[in-house]
Amino acid sequence: MREIFKQEMEQLGEELLTMARLMCSAIEKATQSLETADLTLAEEVIDADSHIDEIERSLDERGVSLLARQQPVATDLRIVVSALRLSATMERMGDLARHLAYVARGRYPEVASTGRMQQILQQMGQQAVKVARQVVELLETRDLNLAEKIEADDDVLDRLHRESFQVVLDDDEQLTRQQLVDAVLLGRYLERFGDHGVSVARRISFLVTGDLQNAVVNTGTMLGLKDEETGGKQTTRQ
Amino acid sequence: MREIFKQEMEQLGEELLTMARLMCSAIEKATQSLETADLTLAEEVIDADSHIDEIERSLDERGVSLLARQQPVATDLRIVVSALRLSATMERMGDLARHLAYVARGRYPEVASTGRMQQILQQMGQQAVKVARQVVELLETRDLNLAEKIEADDDVLDRLHRESFQVVLDDDEQLTRQQLVDAVLLGRYLERFGDHGVSVARRISFLVTGDLQNAVVNTGTMLGLKDEETGGKQTTRQ
Repeated sequence: MREIFKQEMEQLGEELLTMARLMCSAIEKATQSLETADLTLAEEVIDADSHIDEIERSLDERGVSLLARQQPVATDLRIVVSALRLSATMERMGDLARHLAYVARGRYPEVASTGRMQQILQQMGQQAVKVARQVVELLETRDLNLAEKIEADDDVLDRLHRESFQVVLDDDEQLTRQQLVDAVLLGRYLERFGDHGVSVARRISFLVTGDLQNAVVNTGTMLGLKDEETGGKQTTRQ
Repeated sequence: MREIFKQEMEQLGEELLTMARLMCSAIEKATQSLETADLTLAEEVIDADSHIDEIERSLDERGVSLLARQQPVATDLRIVVSALRLSATMERMGDLARHLAYVARGRYPEVASTGRMQQILQQMGQQAVKVARQVVELLETRDLNLAEKIEADDDVLDRLHRESFQVVLDDDEQLTRQQLVDAVLLGRYLERFGDHGVSVARRISFLVTGDLQNAVVNTGTMLGLKDEETGGKQTTRQ
């Protein structure tokens, strides 16, 4: 029984890895499509998202079926439940990459941003890609140092996000209304992507170590603190 | 065994209801704090959010413990898993209400928006409150007609969100940079709140009817279609 459970858990792990790779490819292409106004790449991201959604459904089925047949208890049970949440979060990361691609497609043949804002958004995009690649590597290698690196990279992402607000709120920055709207939305999507990456890293740490206390920090609370930093409050009053 | 399971499911249902009521109160106060620049109300929403987070953790514990002890299979198992997701989504709705409150607090003693944008955001807020109240009522009464009403109200929310883009993109609209940023973020928060409301309504429908096919539509895909309408693409090029 235990052996079968272990095999099934490995299959679940394989499917999570496939999902992570697709999610990583989505954010790589989406950020590049934004940088270079590449319509083909943007369309690829948009089209490929349904594949990520399919895997999420398959993972769901597999997880619930595993619960029904193997009836794991204690830590094993928590691991399966955690894997299901991991999958939901990665699906959401794929969605956010698709949102970036929508903006790239909507502005084609122009790029969505220029000047200082373009620089910041490109850096944010690079951080998001870094987070995604490390999530894949974390699943592949189970090297828990990567989880810490993901948190550090997300901190950089948050700092860049705050910088982006300084630019949009600066009247001296020449920005069209569309560029302003895009900057706010793109910044938000990328910041959320990083937050989800951190949440995923913590869950994977739990899957590896079984250390619930350390890994399953309440995501809402964790994200909440960050949202306060970036959302409405710290953007300066005019 | 079945009787105990039923009782435990009822307790889970009670906790979901408590959570829904807190989430509803949060959006009511948050939208009012935005309308009237009421700092006290905004602070109340921000402080109360940790309570919603606590209930989510408690529900998680209860759900996982129920899975471990009762080892439900088939539909019962899916119901428990679905309840856990419902709880995660309502926690997120609480977070979004808190984001609104952050903006209200950040702009105090001013209101965040004026003129046409204020009207649209107020209407969006009213729709969000309507969605939340109906979610509570749906949990209380299990009247599935409410699920349809929630979807219709979310459609109105999406329409208003598109209107909000027309305003921010209209150079003739006198808006400060801060008002532009706030309008984009508030619109996004409220639109997401509605989407989550629809997702919750579908899951509750499933909890009531056991009709998986109808209720557990992939949330990501569902939301994705909406995001395309509102995110980057349909906002007119400049």
